[in-house]
Amino acid sequence: MEKKSSNTKNSRKISQKANLEENRFKMVKERHRKTFEEALAKGKMDEKLVNFCKYVSSTRNYFTSSCCSGRILLLRIEGNDRDKRNCHFHRKWHDIVSLSEVLAGINEDTKGRIWFKVEPFILHLGCKDLENAKKILEVMKLAGIKRGGIIVAKEGKFMVEFMGTQEMSFLAKEDDAILVDKGYLENAVNEANRKMTVNEEMLIRLEKEVRKKLK
Amino acid sequence: MEKKSSNTKNSRKISQKANLEENRFKMVKERHRKTFEEALAKGKMDEKLVNFCKYVSSTRNYFTSSCCSGRILLLRIEGNDRDKRNCHFHRKWHDIVSLSEVLAGINEDTKGRIWFKVEPFILHLGCKDLENAKKILEVMKLAGIKRGGIIVAKEGKFMVEFMGTQEMSFLAKEDDAILVDKGYLENAVNEANRKMTVNEEMLIRLEKEVRKKLK
Repeated sequence: MEKKSSNTKNSRKISQKANLEENRFKMVKERHRKTFEEALAKGKMDEKLVNFCKYVSSTRNYFTSSCCSGRILLLRIEGNDRDKRNCHFHRKWHDIVSLSEVLAGINEDTKGRIWFKVEPFILHLGCKDLENAKKILEVMKLAGIKRGGIIVAKEGKFMVEFMGTQEMSFLAKEDDAILVDKGYLENAVNEANRKMTVNEEMLIRLEKEVRKKLK
Repeated sequence: MEKKSSNTKNSRKISQKANLEENRFKMVKERHRKTFEEALAKGKMDEKLVNFCKYVSSTRNYFTSSCCSGRILLLRIEGNDRDKRNCHFHRKWHDIVSLSEVLAGINEDTKGRIWFKVEPFILHLGCKDLENAKKILEVMKLAGIKRGGIIVAKEGKFMVEFMGTQEMSFLAKEDDAILVDKGYLENAVNEANRKMTVNEEMLIRLEKEVRKKLK
Protein backbone atom coordinates (compact mmCIF):
# COMPACT_ATOMS: atom_id res chain seq x y z
CA MET A 1 0.00 0.00 0.00
CA GLU A 2 2.81 2.36 0.85
CA LYS A 3 4.30 1.91 -2.61
CA LYS A 4 0.95 2.52 -4.22
CA SER A 5 0.34 5.74 -2.33
CA SER A 6 3.81 7.06 -3.12
CA ASN A 7 3.10 6.30 -6.79
CA THR A 8 -0.15 8.18 -6.63
CA LYS A 9 1.72 11.09 -5.05
CA ASN A 10 4.33 10.94 -7.78
CA SER A 11 1.85 10.93 -10.61
CA ARG A 12 0.00 13.80 -8.94
CA LYS A 13 3.27 15.72 -8.80
CA ILE A 14 3.96 14.98 -12.46
CA SER A 15 0.53 16.15 -13.56
CA GLN A 16 0.84 19.30 -11.41
CA LYS A 17 4.17 20.01 -13.10
CA ALA A 18 2.65 19.45 -16.55
CA ASN A 19 -0.17 21.85 -15.67
CA LEU A 20 2.29 24.46 -14.50
CA GLU A 21 4.26 24.16 -17.75
CA GLU A 22 1.07 24.32 -19.80
CA ASN A 23 -0.04 27.45 -17.95
CA ARG A 24 3.33 29.09 -18.22
CA PHE A 25 3.39 28.41 -21.95
CA LYS A 26 -0.14 29.77 -22.45
CA MET A 27 0.80 32.98 -20.64
CA VAL A 28 3.98 33.44 -22.68
CA LYS A 29 2.18 32.69 -25.96
CA GLU A 30 -0.61 35.14 -25.09
CA ARG A 31 1.91 37.87 -24.22
CA HIS A 32 3.70 37.41 -27.55
CA ARG A 33 0.39 37.37 -29.43
CA LYS A 34 -0.48 40.75 -27.92
CA THR A 35 2.92 42.24 -28.75
CA PHE A 36 2.50 41.02 -32.34
CA GLU A 37 -1.05 42.41 -32.66
CA GLU A 38 0.07 45.78 -31.31
CA ALA A 39 3.03 45.98 -33.70
CA LEU A 40 0.68 45.04 -36.54
CA ALA A 41 -1.85 47.73 -35.57
CA LYS A 42 0.88 50.36 -35.36
CA GLY A 43 2.26 49.36 -38.79
CA LYS A 44 5.53 48.39 -37.14
CA MET A 45 5.54 44.85 -38.48
CA ASP A 46 8.03 43.75 -41.08
CA GLU A 47 5.60 43.31 -44.03
CA LYS A 48 7.24 40.20 -45.39
CA LEU A 49 6.66 38.40 -42.11
CA VAL A 50 3.05 39.39 -41.37
CA ASN A 51 1.42 36.26 -42.87
CA PHE A 52 4.10 34.01 -41.41
CA CYS A 53 3.64 35.45 -37.91
CA LYS A 54 -0.16 35.41 -38.22
CA TYR A 55 -0.07 31.72 -39.05
CA VAL A 56 2.31 30.84 -36.21
CA SER A 57 0.19 32.88 -33.81
CA SER A 58 -2.87 30.83 -34.86
CA THR A 59 -1.24 27.48 -34.02
CA ARG A 60 -1.80 25.74 -30.71
CA ASN A 61 1.83 25.04 -29.86
CA TYR A 62 3.96 27.88 -31.23
CA PHE A 63 4.48 31.63 -31.15
CA THR A 64 6.86 34.13 -32.74
CA SER A 65 9.07 36.52 -30.84
CA SER A 66 11.35 39.19 -32.38
CA CYS A 67 11.83 38.64 -36.10
CA CYS A 68 13.50 40.46 -38.99
CA SER A 69 13.02 39.51 -42.64
CA GLY A 70 16.50 40.66 -43.63
CA ARG A 71 17.81 44.09 -44.57
CA ILE A 72 20.29 46.24 -46.41
CA LEU A 73 21.98 48.73 -44.10
CA LEU A 74 24.23 51.71 -44.07
CA LEU A 75 25.58 51.33 -40.55
CA ARG A 76 27.37 54.33 -39.08
CA ILE A 77 29.92 53.55 -36.39
CA GLU A 78 31.60 56.13 -34.21
CA GLY A 79 34.31 54.56 -32.05
CA ASN A 80 34.51 50.91 -31.04
CA ASP A 81 31.99 48.74 -32.91
CA ARG A 82 31.77 46.29 -30.01
CA ASP A 83 29.74 48.86 -28.11
CA LYS A 84 26.27 48.86 -29.66
CA ARG A 85 25.73 52.47 -28.57
CA ASN A 86 28.35 53.48 -31.15
CA CYS A 87 26.40 51.87 -34.01
CA HIS A 88 23.61 53.81 -35.73
CA PHE A 89 21.29 52.89 -38.59
CA HIS A 90 22.16 55.64 -41.07
CA ARG A 91 19.84 53.94 -43.62
CA LYS A 92 17.83 50.71 -43.40
CA TRP A 93 15.84 48.95 -46.14
CA HIS A 94 13.84 45.74 -45.75
CA ASP A 95 13.74 45.35 -49.52
CA ILE A 96 15.92 45.62 -52.60
CA VAL A 97 17.35 49.09 -53.02
CA SER A 98 18.38 51.45 -55.84
CA LEU A 99 21.89 52.80 -56.38
CA SER A 100 20.57 56.36 -56.05
CA GLU A 101 19.09 55.65 -52.60
CA VAL A 102 22.42 54.24 -51.43
CA LEU A 103 24.36 57.14 -52.95
CA ALA A 104 22.05 59.66 -51.27
CA GLY A 105 22.81 58.02 -47.92
CA ILE A 106 26.53 57.90 -48.51
CA ASN A 107 26.83 61.42 -49.88
CA GLU A 108 25.25 62.92 -46.79
CA ASP A 109 27.62 64.68 -44.37
CA THR A 110 28.57 62.08 -41.78
CA LYS A 111 31.13 61.46 -39.04
CA GLY A 112 32.68 58.07 -38.31
CA ARG A 113 32.75 54.99 -40.53
CA ILE A 114 29.90 53.80 -42.73
CA TRP A 115 29.58 50.09 -43.45
CA PHE A 116 27.42 48.77 -46.25
CA LYS A 117 25.78 45.60 -44.99
CA VAL A 118 23.36 42.87 -45.99
CA GLU A 119 21.91 41.05 -43.00
CA PRO A 120 19.82 37.90 -43.55
CA PHE A 121 16.51 37.12 -41.83
CA ILE A 122 16.58 36.20 -38.16
CA LEU A 123 13.54 34.60 -36.56
CA HIS A 124 12.61 33.51 -33.05
CA LEU A 125 9.97 30.83 -32.59
CA GLY A 126 8.76 29.72 -29.19
CA CYS A 127 7.06 26.56 -28.00
CA LYS A 128 6.24 24.63 -24.84
CA ASP A 129 8.57 21.68 -24.77
CA LEU A 130 11.52 19.89 -26.33
CA GLU A 131 9.35 17.83 -28.68
CA ASN A 132 7.85 20.96 -30.22
CA ALA A 133 11.28 22.56 -30.45
CA LYS A 134 12.64 19.52 -32.29
CA LYS A 135 9.74 19.84 -34.72
CA ILE A 136 10.88 23.42 -35.49
CA LEU A 137 14.44 22.18 -36.11
CA GLU A 138 13.03 19.61 -38.53
CA VAL A 139 11.04 22.28 -40.37
CA MET A 140 14.16 24.44 -40.53
CA LYS A 141 16.07 21.62 -42.21
CA LEU A 142 13.24 20.87 -44.63
CA ALA A 143 13.32 24.54 -45.64
CA GLY A 144 17.07 24.30 -46.28
CA ILE A 145 18.00 26.68 -43.45
CA LYS A 146 21.42 25.84 -42.10
CA ARG A 147 21.91 28.17 -39.16
CA GLY A 148 19.95 28.02 -35.95
CA GLY A 149 19.09 26.05 -32.87
CA ILE A 150 17.32 25.95 -29.52
CA ILE A 151 18.59 28.94 -27.54
CA VAL A 152 16.30 28.75 -24.50
CA ALA A 153 15.25 25.47 -22.88
CA LYS A 154 13.10 26.11 -19.82
CA GLU A 155 10.02 24.35 -18.56
CA GLY A 156 7.10 25.83 -20.49
CA LYS A 157 9.32 27.98 -22.69
CA PHE A 158 11.59 26.76 -25.46
CA MET A 159 12.92 29.24 -28.02
CA VAL A 160 14.42 28.41 -31.40
CA GLU A 161 16.42 31.04 -33.25
CA PHE A 162 17.31 30.70 -36.90
CA MET A 163 18.74 32.85 -39.60
CA GLY A 164 19.70 32.99 -43.25
CA THR A 165 23.21 33.10 -44.62
CA GLN A 166 22.97 35.87 -47.24
CA GLU A 167 25.52 38.38 -46.00
CA MET A 168 27.72 41.21 -47.17
CA SER A 169 29.72 43.69 -45.17
CA PHE A 170 32.24 46.29 -46.30
CA LEU A 171 33.55 49.67 -45.26
CA ALA A 172 32.23 52.34 -47.64
CA LYS A 173 33.15 55.66 -46.00
CA GLU A 174 35.44 57.06 -43.34
CA ASP A 175 34.50 60.55 -42.11
CA ASP A 176 34.39 62.63 -45.33
CA ALA A 177 36.18 60.12 -47.52
CA ILE A 178 34.07 57.81 -49.69
CA LEU A 179 36.27 54.74 -50.12
CA VAL A 180 34.66 53.05 -53.14
CA ASP A 181 33.70 54.52 -56.51
CA LYS A 182 30.26 54.64 -58.10
CA GLY A 183 30.97 51.61 -60.32
CA TYR A 184 31.93 49.52 -57.31
CA LEU A 185 28.82 50.62 -55.42
CA GLU A 186 26.60 49.81 -58.40
CA ASN A 187 28.04 46.30 -58.48
CA ALA A 188 27.65 45.99 -54.70
CA VAL A 189 24.02 47.11 -54.83
CA ASN A 190 23.31 44.48 -57.51
CA GLU A 191 24.95 41.79 -55.37
CA ALA A 192 23.07 42.98 -52.30
CA ASN A 193 19.74 42.90 -54.15
CA ARG A 194 20.47 39.42 -55.43
CA LYS A 195 21.20 38.30 -51.87
CA MET A 196 17.98 39.90 -50.62
CA THR A 197 16.04 38.03 -53.31
CA VAL A 198 17.58 34.68 -52.32
CA ASN A 199 16.89 35.57 -48.69
CA GLU A 200 13.21 36.20 -49.50
CA GLU A 201 12.93 32.94 -51.45
CA MET A 202 14.19 31.14 -48.33
CA LEU A 203 11.52 32.82 -46.21
CA ILE A 204 8.78 31.79 -48.66
CA ARG A 205 10.04 28.20 -48.60
CA LEU A 206 10.14 28.30 -44.81
CA GLU A 207 6.58 29.61 -44.53
CA LYS A 208 5.38 26.78 -46.76
CA GLU A 209 7.02 24.15 -44.51
CA VAL A 210 5.79 25.86 -41.34
CA ARG A 211 2.20 25.80 -42.61
CA LYS A 212 2.53 22.11 -43.44
CA LYS A 213 4.20 20.94 -40.23
CA LEU A 214 3.52 23.23 -37.27
CA LYS A 215 0.06 23.01 -35.72
CA MET B 1 0.41 -6.56 -6.49
CA GLU B 2 -0.39 -5.96 -10.13
CA LYS B 3 0.34 -2.26 -9.76
CA LYS B 4 3.60 -2.99 -8.00
CA SER B 5 4.79 -5.35 -10.71
CA SER B 6 3.89 -2.90 -13.46
CA ASN B 7 5.87 -0.26 -11.58
CA THR B 8 8.85 -2.54 -11.34
CA LYS B 9 8.53 -3.12 -15.07
CA ASN B 10 8.34 0.59 -15.71
CA SER B 11 11.39 1.43 -13.65
CA ARG B 12 13.28 -1.41 -15.34
CA LYS B 13 12.31 0.07 -18.72
CA ILE B 14 13.47 3.52 -17.61
CA SER B 15 16.82 2.25 -16.40
CA GLN B 16 17.29 0.23 -19.61
CA LYS B 17 16.59 3.38 -21.60
CA ALA B 18 19.09 5.35 -19.48
CA ASN B 19 21.69 2.65 -20.06
CA LEU B 20 21.08 2.74 -23.80
CA GLU B 21 21.49 6.53 -23.85
CA GLU B 22 24.63 6.30 -21.73
CA ASN B 23 26.11 3.68 -24.07
CA ARG B 24 25.16 5.58 -27.17
CA PHE B 25 26.78 8.71 -25.76
CA LYS B 26 29.97 6.86 -24.79
CA MET B 27 30.27 5.45 -28.32
CA VAL B 28 29.73 8.84 -29.93
CA LYS B 29 32.19 10.54 -27.57
CA GLU B 30 34.82 7.86 -28.21
CA ARG B 31 34.40 8.19 -31.97
CA HIS B 32 34.89 11.95 -31.78
CA ARG B 33 37.89 11.55 -29.47
CA LYS B 34 39.54 9.31 -32.07
CA THR B 35 38.82 11.72 -34.93
CA PHE B 36 40.33 14.52 -32.86
CA GLU B 37 43.45 12.52 -31.94
CA GLU B 38 43.97 11.57 -35.58
CA ALA B 39 43.63 15.15 -36.79
CA LEU B 40 46.07 16.21 -34.06
CA ALA B 41 48.61 13.55 -35.04
CA LYS B 42 48.37 14.55 -38.71
CA GLY B 43 48.85 18.24 -37.83
CA LYS B 44 45.42 18.99 -39.26
CA MET B 45 44.09 20.60 -36.11
CA ASP B 46 43.39 24.29 -35.99
CA GLU B 47 46.20 25.31 -33.58
CA LYS B 48 44.15 27.85 -31.67
CA LEU B 49 41.66 25.16 -30.71
CA VAL B 50 44.01 22.33 -29.68
CA ASN B 51 43.99 23.08 -25.94
CA PHE B 52 40.29 23.81 -25.95
CA CYS B 53 39.48 20.52 -27.70
CA LYS B 54 41.90 18.58 -25.49
CA TYR B 55 40.17 19.87 -22.40
CA VAL B 56 36.67 19.11 -23.68
CA SER B 57 37.82 15.65 -24.72
CA SER B 58 39.03 15.02 -21.14
CA THR B 59 35.65 15.83 -19.57
CA ARG B 60 33.16 13.14 -18.69
CA ASN B 61 30.11 14.67 -20.31
CA TYR B 62 31.23 16.54 -23.44
CA PHE B 63 33.04 16.19 -26.74
CA THR B 64 33.93 18.45 -29.66
CA SER B 65 32.93 17.84 -33.23
CA SER B 66 33.95 19.95 -36.26
CA CYS B 67 35.40 23.31 -35.18
CA CYS B 68 37.03 26.30 -36.88
CA SER B 69 38.76 29.09 -34.96
CA GLY B 70 37.89 31.72 -37.58
CA ARG B 71 39.61 32.68 -40.81
CA ILE B 72 40.37 35.24 -43.47
CA LEU B 73 39.54 33.99 -46.94
CA LEU B 74 39.88 34.79 -50.56
CA LEU B 75 36.92 32.82 -51.84
CA ARG B 76 36.78 32.22 -55.58
CA ILE B 77 33.31 31.67 -57.00
CA GLU B 78 32.58 30.50 -60.52
CA GLY B 79 28.86 30.60 -61.29
CA ASN B 80 26.07 30.46 -58.71
CA ASP B 81 27.37 30.85 -55.13
CA ARG B 82 24.48 28.77 -53.75
CA ASP B 83 26.15 25.67 -55.15
CA LYS B 84 29.10 24.89 -52.87
CA ARG B 85 30.91 23.15 -55.73
CA ASN B 86 31.33 26.57 -57.36
CA CYS B 87 33.14 27.99 -54.30
CA HIS B 88 36.90 27.43 -53.90
CA PHE B 89 39.32 28.52 -51.20
CA HIS B 90 41.76 30.57 -53.27
CA ARG B 91 43.57 31.53 -50.05
CA LYS B 92 42.79 30.69 -46.40
CA TRP B 93 44.48 32.02 -43.24
CA HIS B 94 43.62 31.06 -39.66
CA ASP B 95 45.51 34.07 -38.39
CA ILE B 96 46.05 37.77 -39.07
CA VAL B 97 47.43 38.38 -42.52
CA SER B 98 49.72 40.87 -44.30
CA LEU B 99 48.70 43.11 -47.19
CA SER B 100 51.37 41.53 -49.40
CA GLU B 101 49.95 38.02 -48.82
CA VAL B 102 46.49 39.23 -49.82
CA LEU B 103 47.83 41.11 -52.84
CA ALA B 104 49.76 38.04 -53.99
CA GLY B 105 46.52 36.05 -53.89
CA ILE B 106 44.52 38.71 -55.69
CA ASN B 107 47.14 39.42 -58.36
CA GLU B 108 47.28 35.79 -59.44
CA ASP B 109 45.52 34.95 -62.71
CA THR B 110 42.02 33.84 -61.79
CA LYS B 111 38.61 33.25 -63.36
CA GLY B 112 35.32 34.08 -61.68
CA ARG B 113 34.71 36.38 -58.74
CA ILE B 114 36.94 36.68 -55.68
CA TRP B 115 35.37 37.65 -52.36
CA PHE B 116 37.47 38.84 -49.44
CA LYS B 117 35.93 37.39 -46.30
CA VAL B 118 36.36 37.22 -42.55
CA GLU B 119 34.52 34.28 -41.01
CA PRO B 120 34.25 34.00 -37.21
CA PHE B 121 34.85 30.83 -35.18
CA ILE B 122 32.26 28.09 -35.37
CA LEU B 123 32.27 25.30 -32.79
CA HIS B 124 30.28 22.13 -32.25
CA LEU B 125 30.06 20.66 -28.78
CA GLY B 126 28.28 17.41 -28.04
CA CYS B 127 26.82 15.98 -24.85
CA LYS B 128 24.46 13.28 -23.62
CA ASP B 129 21.31 15.04 -22.56
CA LEU B 130 19.34 18.27 -22.37
CA GLU B 131 20.74 19.22 -18.97
CA ASN B 132 24.32 19.08 -20.28
CA ALA B 133 23.30 21.00 -23.40
CA LYS B 134 21.74 23.73 -21.26
CA LYS B 135 25.00 23.96 -19.36
CA ILE B 136 26.81 24.67 -22.64
CA LEU B 137 24.29 27.41 -23.47
CA GLU B 138 24.99 28.95 -20.05
CA VAL B 139 28.74 28.85 -20.65
CA MET B 140 28.18 30.44 -24.07
CA LYS B 141 26.33 33.33 -22.44
CA LEU B 142 28.94 33.74 -19.71
CA ALA B 143 31.57 34.02 -22.43
CA GLY B 144 29.53 36.73 -24.17
CA ILE B 145 28.79 34.64 -27.26
CA LYS B 146 25.51 35.67 -28.80
CA ARG B 147 24.96 33.23 -31.64
CA GLY B 148 24.28 29.55 -31.21
CA GLY B 149 21.96 26.89 -29.89
CA ILE B 150 21.11 23.22 -29.65
CA ILE B 151 21.00 21.91 -33.21
CA VAL B 152 20.60 18.17 -32.53
CA ALA B 153 18.44 16.79 -29.73
CA LYS B 154 18.42 13.00 -29.78
CA GLU B 155 18.58 10.47 -26.98
CA GLY B 156 22.24 10.11 -26.09
CA LYS B 157 23.35 12.80 -28.51
CA PHE B 158 22.81 16.51 -28.11
CA MET B 159 24.84 18.95 -30.22
CA VAL B 160 25.32 22.65 -29.58
CA GLU B 161 26.66 24.88 -32.33
CA PHE B 162 27.93 28.36 -31.67
CA MET B 163 29.80 31.01 -33.52
CA GLY B 164 31.32 34.46 -33.29
CA THR B 165 30.02 37.58 -34.98
CA GLN B 166 33.20 39.10 -36.43
CA GLU B 167 32.46 39.17 -40.14
CA MET B 168 33.42 40.95 -43.33
CA SER B 169 32.55 40.12 -46.90
CA PHE B 170 33.14 42.07 -50.10
CA LEU B 171 33.75 41.47 -53.78
CA ALA B 172 37.40 42.17 -54.62
CA LYS B 173 37.86 40.88 -58.16
CA GLU B 174 35.84 39.87 -61.19
CA ASP B 175 37.74 37.80 -63.76
CA ASP B 176 40.78 39.97 -64.60
CA ALA B 177 39.46 43.16 -63.03
CA ILE B 178 40.58 44.03 -59.50
CA LEU B 179 37.72 46.14 -58.16
CA VAL B 180 39.37 47.87 -55.20
CA ASP B 181 42.64 49.79 -55.04
CA LYS B 182 45.64 49.06 -52.85
CA GLY B 183 44.70 51.70 -50.28
CA TYR B 184 41.25 50.17 -49.86
CA LEU B 185 42.73 46.70 -49.48
CA GLU B 186 45.22 47.93 -46.89
CA ASN B 187 42.39 49.38 -44.86
CA ALA B 188 40.36 46.18 -45.31
CA VAL B 189 43.27 44.00 -44.18
CA ASN B 190 43.64 46.14 -41.04
CA GLU B 191 39.93 45.81 -40.29
CA ALA B 192 40.06 42.07 -40.96
CA ASN B 193 43.03 41.63 -38.61
CA ARG B 194 41.27 43.63 -35.92
CA LYS B 195 38.22 41.38 -36.29
CA MET B 196 40.41 38.27 -36.11
CA THR B 197 41.96 39.60 -32.88
CA VAL B 198 38.55 40.22 -31.29
CA ASN B 199 37.49 36.77 -32.50
CA GLU B 200 40.50 35.20 -30.77
CA GLU B 201 39.85 37.11 -27.54
CA MET B 202 36.34 35.64 -27.55
CA LEU B 203 37.77 32.13 -27.94
CA ILE B 204 40.15 32.67 -25.00
CA ARG B 205 37.28 33.92 -22.86
CA LEU B 206 35.21 30.93 -23.90
CA GLU B 207 37.95 28.43 -23.05
CA LYS B 208 38.24 29.97 -19.59
CA GLU B 209 34.51 29.53 -18.94
CA VAL B 210 34.49 26.02 -20.39
CA ARG B 211 37.31 24.95 -18.05
CA LYS B 212 35.44 26.40 -15.08
CA LYS B 213 32.00 24.98 -15.85
CA LEU B 214 32.11 21.86 -18.01
CA LYS B 215 33.21 18.66 -16.29
